Amino acid sequence: MNALAAHLPDAAGLIARRAGILTYQSPVVYMRVDCEICRSEGFEAQTRVEIEWKGRTVIATVHHVAADWLGHGEAGLSEPAWRVLGLSGGEMLAIRHPPVLESERHIRGKTYGASLDYEKLKTIMHDVAAGRLSDLHLASFVTATAGGRMSHEETVALTRAMIDVGERLHWPFSPVMDKHCVGGLPGNRTTPLVVAIVTACGLVMPKTSSRAITSPAGTADTMETLAPVNLDLQAMRRVVEKVGGCIVWGGSVQLSPADDVLIRVSRPLDLDGTAQLVASVLSKKAAAGSERVLIDIPVGPTAKVRSEEAADELGGLLEHVGEAVGLQLRVVRTDGTQPVGRGVGPALEARDVLAVLQRDSAAPADLRERALLLAGHLLEIGGKAGPGAGYALAQQALDSGQAWTQFVAICEAQGGLRQPPVAPHVRPYLAGAAGVVTAVDNRKLAMVAKLAGAPGAPAAGITLEVKLGDRIARGQPLFHVHAQTTGELEYAQAYANRQQGLVTIEEIA
Amino acid sequence: MNALAAHLPDAAGLIARRAGILTYQSPVVYMRVDCEICRSEGFEAQTRVEIEWKGRTVIATVHHVAADWLGHGEAGLSEPAWRVLGLSGGEMLAIRHPPVLESERHIRGKTYGASLDYEKLKTIMHDVAAGRLSDLHLASFVTATAGGRMSHEETVALTRAMIDVGERLHWPFSPVMDKHCVGGLPGNRTTPLVVAIVTACGLVMPKTSSRAITSPAGTADTMETLAPVNLDLQAMRRVVEKVGGCIVWGGSVQLSPADDVLIRVSRPLDLDGTAQLVASVLSKKAAAGSERVLIDIPVGPTAKVRSEEAADELGGLLEHVGEAVGLQLRVVRTDGTQPVGRGVGPALEARDVLAVLQRDSAAPADLRERALLLAGHLLEIGGKAGPGAGYALAQQALDSGQAWTQFVAICEAQGGLRQPPVAPHVRPYLAGAAGVVTAVDNRKLAMVAKLAGAPGAPAAGITLEVKLGDRIARGQPLFHVHAQTTGELEYAQAYANRQQGLVTIEEIA
Repeated sequence: MNALAAHLPDAAGLIARRAGILTYQSPVVYMRVDCEICRSEGFEAQTRVEIEWKGRTVIATVHHVAADWLGHGEAGLSEPAWRVLGLSGGEMLAIRHPPVLESERHIRGKTYGASLDYEKLKTIMHDVAAGRLSDLHLASFVTATAGGRMSHEETVALTRAMIDVGERLHWPFSPVMDKHCVGGLPGNRTTPLVVAIVTACGLVMPKTSSRAITSPAGTADTMETLAPVNLDLQAMRRVVEKVGGCIVWGGSVQLSPADDVLIRVSRPLDLDGTAQLVASVLSKKAAAGSERVLIDIPVGPTAKVRSEEAADELGGLLEHVGEAVGLQLRVVRTDGTQPVGRGVGPALEARDVLAVLQRDSAAPADLRERALLLAGHLLEIGGKAGPGAGYALAQQALDSGQAWTQFVAICEAQGGLRQPPVAPHVRPYLAGAAGVVTAVDNRKLAMVAKLAGAPGAPAAGITLEVKLGDRIARGQPLFHVHAQTTGELEYAQAYANRQQGLVTIEEIA
Repeated sequence: MNALAAHLPDAAGLIARRAGILTYQSPVVYMRVDCEICRSEGFEAQTRVEIEWKGRTVIATVHHVAADWLGHGEAGLSEPAWRVLGLSGGEMLAIRHPPVLESERHIRGKTYGASLDYEKLKTIMHDVAAGRLSDLHLASFVTATAGGRMSHEETVALTRAMIDVGERLHWPFSPVMDKHCVGGLPGNRTTPLVVAIVTACGLVMPKTSSRAITSPAGTADTMETLAPVNLDLQAMRRVVEKVGGCIVWGGSVQLSPADDVLIRVSRPLDLDGTAQLVASVLSKKAAAGSERVLIDIPVGPTAKVRSEEAADELGGLLEHVGEAVGLQLRVVRTDGTQPVGRGVGPALEARDVLAVLQRDSAAPADLRERALLLAGHLLEIGGKAGPGAGYALAQQALDSGQAWTQFVAICEAQGGLRQPPVAPHVRPYLAGAAGVVTAVDNRKLAMVAKLAGAPGAPAAGITLEVKLGDRIARGQPLFHVHAQTTGELEYAQAYANRQQGLVTIEEIA
């Protein structure tokens, strides 16, 4: 029997100790297996407990420790728990059974067929954002709301709830433009180009972008090789006031925080249901203070959206919910059959972006075309060009050099334009046979780029030297691997050599 | 770049180290934050990885460690991972991205509305039992199959699949009798009585029971205060051959192992859907080799089954699925409005059982009545009594002392009858006012028993001294707390003193 128990009528007390273990968004508390408090309170392995210190609380999963690094009377906290409580070590923590959350009842209700209204969804999103729900409950929510089980009304309410539990930006400009691409294609780095073009034409576009999560580069990673992107809200506002646009990392602003948590859970379950996708995209846009938003839906057999019918359904729901939350939306479909540009990896994609802006004759034509198309639509919905006249205006801004000048101005305002780094080690991957390129495995190519070091090593990645339909000779480079170290180069190459069908070449009779 | 990587074409290698952390059924692998293999392979915090050693594999969640207890080039394994791989420390482990499991696709399909057939369910149950599915996927499965989304056909297939992925017992006797109570009431310890009565009458009943999970006592915990219950299959067979029955712990036999995993996940989600409940109960019975099974459904406002309609639905499905998997079932309903007997806690419940068997005049009448009722039904479906004649036969076996003699024989065969322990510290909880008992909070009383030390301290718990409707005087004991240590006694009492409505007493005008 621990002597503390008698003094703590409502909770057991243990001394805080930093375990130094990263458990991502899932707080864990480590307790000794011989901890008397655990026994008397019934804190078994995997139990959820509420930990309190000075009014702050976190709900954590109990893991029992039979090793010596944790002392008697101590509770080890994993990093997420440590951060939330703001500890420095040695504090006396109150540990108790967690309250039953209303959200848990609502999730259970939805599972049993009840519908969710705004109030219930807001309660759930609040607990999601605050990390109060277990992974089990998060997975249950994501499952119970997938597969067409959310009405349009519920999807609107979910989007509103996701917006309302986070911060929301307000801009002293109008219209505020934004864009989003549903399901990225490798190398499809149009955002820096689009922002440069439309802001060169006088529109305001304060763009926040993400870093890579599972891919070799996110827009923020690519942009960071050209200018600083870790701007806080104040700095971001100054940039936008000065030059009309920015391309910064969105992670320092708490926009739709529940969405980040739900994405972590729905990704491994492969449950990117339409309702959740729409709520995710539109809540982020509305929270960012955007007013007129272009949505790009690449359609192709290996893209996220695989058919025109699926694009119809998604587009229709995006428009319905967008209108309900006060966004003016235009949805366009683009070719989603193969990668875009040459580079895959932060700096290599940045080089493609620079080549297009600088009107280099070797610039990837497909990247340029897509950027002009998207920028044209934004110019139209932003009121700078009449219907059908946006593309020509975008082309003029790009070809005249105005977009490049504007891009330089944005980079300078963000802290200074810089040259993307160059990897010291480059090695070609050669065609084993002559023929025509009939398929490219995006997933495996992305893995090669990641093994080469991207995005951690920004110069690393691959440059794809062929497109579908290209006729090639035996021994011709199909792609180059770029790496910071020879070890990584060899590791990536060893992986590439073991794979079948990275680039498929068929002999044509 | 770790030098190992170049030598390991398909997987990264790290040295096995026992982390000494209990993560229940969820294997965790601890890797250093500066682990090069993690970076190059993209093993981020919360990633799932497959770990292999000598052909054995386990799928574990990655937690990153920034503390000194884990060395460079080492992978720390939590206890479940350590056990599955059968390690002793220092082994070179292969660590790689896990294969995409077919079960994950099937779960996703069910979420999107597809139905599950036997083959798919067997694949899922196999991965569930082998611990290959993440908690996220387990929660997703439980959610996608709850809320009436399983047809009768799917429930039959699920039950078969759960049976087929575990071991199945076969007995050289027939009929093999069994019983199950849906949703236990506190103190409702009829099993030892029922087994003693029906085997005294010549039926065979090899009963496996569970230990407490969240309650102050399971049947195995109670029985263990009277005789050894940790018998392996061989020993269990010898007992049954000798005396026709047993009451042992089922945990050492792998019957319906998937069920144990699903219960862990569905309990915190509070998703004890009818389909899963039926599959859980009947798979365990069929796997245990039982042929004729009595199902007891207590019905009452605070019981698991709250209405006659719910009992109708559950009973009907149990009978349908039971027939499909070859079980002969009888379903009976009993009073579920209040606790049964006096004791709550292993030894205190055992005392109630002994009192009934020994025909003690102070034996709890309600416990005796329930045992006779259930035993009577079993005698009828087992062919020892005609329709309606079972109760009288059971009563005769009990009142003649045959049941007590038989119970002693069972205990001796299991390793020897023993006296349940007595707690050294007992303290009454007194009525604060005179009146009539109008409500008893089962959950809070169970918590008092657990804080007093049950089931870890087998003598601990409470003895309830009143029943609903009893007229009591101020200062009269409502229950006694029994504890092994004064600390636990005080801890339990402090909790009891802080609660409202443990036992509600209303003044009657």
